Amino acid sequence: ITSRLPAVGTTIFTVMSALAAEHKAVNLGQGFPDFACDPALVDQVTQAMQAGHNQYPPMPGVPALREAVATKIEALHAHQYGAADEITITAGATQAIITAILAIVHPGDEVIVLEPCYDSYVPNIELAGGVAVRVPLTPGTFRPDFAKISAAITPRTRAILINTPHNPSATVWSRADMLALQDLLAPTNILLISDEVYEHMVFDGAQHESASRFPGLAARAFVVSSFGKTFHVTGWKVGTVVAPAPLMAEFRKVHQFNVFTVNTPVQYGLARYLANPAPYQDLPAFYQRRRDLFRAGLQNTRFKLLPSEGSYFQCVDISEVSDLNEADFCQWLTREVGVAAIPLSAFYGEGFDQRVVRFCFAKQDETLHNALKRLQSL
Amino acid sequence: ITSRLPAVGTTIFTVMSALAAEHKAVNLGQGFPDFACDPALVDQVTQAMQAGHNQYPPMPGVPALREAVATKIEALHAHQYGAADEITITAGATQAIITAILAIVHPGDEVIVLEPCYDSYVPNIELAGGVAVRVPLTPGTFRPDFAKISAAITPRTRAILINTPHNPSATVWSRADMLALQDLLAPTNILLISDEVYEHMVFDGAQHESASRFPGLAARAFVVSSFGKTFHVTGWKVGTVVAPAPLMAEFRKVHQFNVFTVNTPVQYGLARYLANPAPYQDLPAFYQRRRDLFRAGLQNTRFKLLPSEGSYFQCVDISEVSDLNEADFCQWLTREVGVAAIPLSAFYGEGFDQRVVRFCFAKQDETLHNALKRLQSL
Ligand SMILES: CSCCC(=O)C(=O)O
Ligand SMILES: CSCCC(=O)C(=O)O
Repeated sequence: ITSRLPAVGTTIFTVMSALAAEHKAVNLGQGFPDFACDPALVDQVTQAMQAGHNQYPPMPGVPALREAVATKIEALHAHQYGAADEITITAGATQAIITAILAIVHPGDEVIVLEPCYDSYVPNIELAGGVAVRVPLTPGTFRPDFAKISAAITPRTRAILINTPHNPSATVWSRADMLALQDLLAPTNILLISDEVYEHMVFDGAQHESASRFPGLAARAFVVSSFGKTFHVTGWKVGTVVAPAPLMAEFRKVHQFNVFTVNTPVQYGLARYLANPAPYQDLPAFYQRRRDLFRAGLQNTRFKLLPSEGSYFQCVDISEVSDLNEADFCQWLTREVGVAAIPLSAFYGEGFDQRVVRFCFAKQDETLHNALKRLQSL
Repeated sequence: ITSRLPAVGTTIFTVMSALAAEHKAVNLGQGFPDFACDPALVDQVTQAMQAGHNQYPPMPGVPALREAVATKIEALHAHQYGAADEITITAGATQAIITAILAIVHPGDEVIVLEPCYDSYVPNIELAGGVAVRVPLTPGTFRPDFAKISAAITPRTRAILINTPHNPSATVWSRADMLALQDLLAPTNILLISDEVYEHMVFDGAQHESASRFPGLAARAFVVSSFGKTFHVTGWKVGTVVAPAPLMAEFRKVHQFNVFTVNTPVQYGLARYLANPAPYQDLPAFYQRRRDLFRAGLQNTRFKLLPSEGSYFQCVDISEVSDLNEADFCQWLTREVGVAAIPLSAFYGEGFDQRVVRFCFAKQDETLHNALKRLQSL
């Protein structure tokens, strides 16, 4: 059998979590919280199951949940999406992104991705028969370089994929960045896929600038988010995509033949739970405290802290800690020091190494202290 | 925006369920039970959530569930699949099928489908850049015609997709059928995708002949099943795919970048629930009683009953009931008579009409009686 994805192995997150388990390392690699979700959310899902909401929901999602999403986006970003035809509930953000790509990318179309980027993007584009055009974020700062993006546009460019707050670099696109993107795309037909799964984790009083807030972007964008990340239930695999109706019509043609629809009781539970905005309004402070705790712990070590403006990740430069390349360092750190991390090279095409690794701080204080004690020994 | 699926609209199941709701019709269209699942299963999922099983499970699925699946298949079909590398838990059978297709079909490859077939198959093949080669099942009997299948094979044939028990025709492939397929494929490298989601609904003492039972098929097959259908929880969106390790490795490369993984508490709940085989062992009798009740109710009407050997569907010939084509008949039946059905044309390429429609009898007795009263008036 000839592989459709010859360059692809098992995703780094699975590999590192398995290695962490094997070596009983503190797992700061794969991004997921190690604390419990709100028991009220579990109760809502339980009630939905007990009430018999266990058969297929409507293909695009439970109407009450789509309406709650519309209400939330209007409150946060002053943009109105129609619950009927512009919002779809997905089996997580990854499924939303591949589905959008399969819906819009024709064989030979180019899709611009900004490196470093999440490891599913490029294989997703290749599975659609498209060509991924990798444009680097500015080395060192990981900020978008609009001159480079502009230079990468060709008549075959079908779409650009962005991600803010950014995984793995923990940068957050500013209002000026989003306006620059809007200007750049204005004269084109290029579509936008905006991965905003860390939308509620933005620190130091900054604000998440969703593509939904910018009319020139919203009109061409699939905006993707994740309840799993927002509500500490990454294993529930439920997210959202919003887009103008003509784009959403194409999305749903593929969605219905990919997963068809998404777990019914989880959707009912989330619909009820979203009536109270407190859980996501409290998130910036909730995660900023963890970020600060983790950064403070690394302050007097030889790890060099990069900024963490958003997401639940903290990148560090390891060059004063070790001579290993970043991939080998993560292996060594997991096996010998007992802390798992993710090398940034996993977010690039082959062979890149800038001696930076990513830690996830979505952990209980005790977990972070435990990891810090080990890291401080280096 | 140019559609990737220009011939595709909203799936017939969504269209007919919406029409049924609008007209308060008895919905015997889309296939799903209207009775409750076992409360013990709900309790298991609740306990898993309460125990904190809410973060990402391993990418291929929770080990205990994969082991339970391996045990079940060995007991039923005397074939051993490795839980580690030959079994993956999917977000339903549809997601398993598109993922298998994306993993093995290269642009220009041909995939044989046997018409009538489930409406996701052909778009799935087209999204992978493949070419669907439609081979008709024998008109009238819906049995496989191996001479026709053989004639459709070319050097570009990458795979064949089969489905037994069969949706929509309710036929079941015999041991002789499976052996004939095994012989036909023996001298080829053609892969098999075997959709067996109705595996536990086989009537009149017949046995489900899984591709897993035939070494020459198992060695080249993705065998797909559905917990949603087996345990009356179609809305939970959880299924399985089993395949030899080299095929599964390619499957997982795509799976990890499609949905990554599947709802954790549902997997834990199912793992515990599967320890008791009674729920699926009882299914043939459970559904045969409903089939017999439904068929008895149509006996003295002008609907002509086709055989229903398996699945939870009953097809009927409408030619003595109405002059309408089958698609218009289903619309009329839903609006005017108050019973929703699915026209068989939905399972074919454009323009086919043999005056046959499909009813789903996975319903409470009261629902079936209610529908029968209306149908008996025609
Ligand atoms: C899908 S597992 C990876 C989770 C994640 O988003 C990350 O660690 O970057
Ligand atoms: C995914 S909705 C359709 C359910 C089903 O399998 C059918 O009705 O054939």
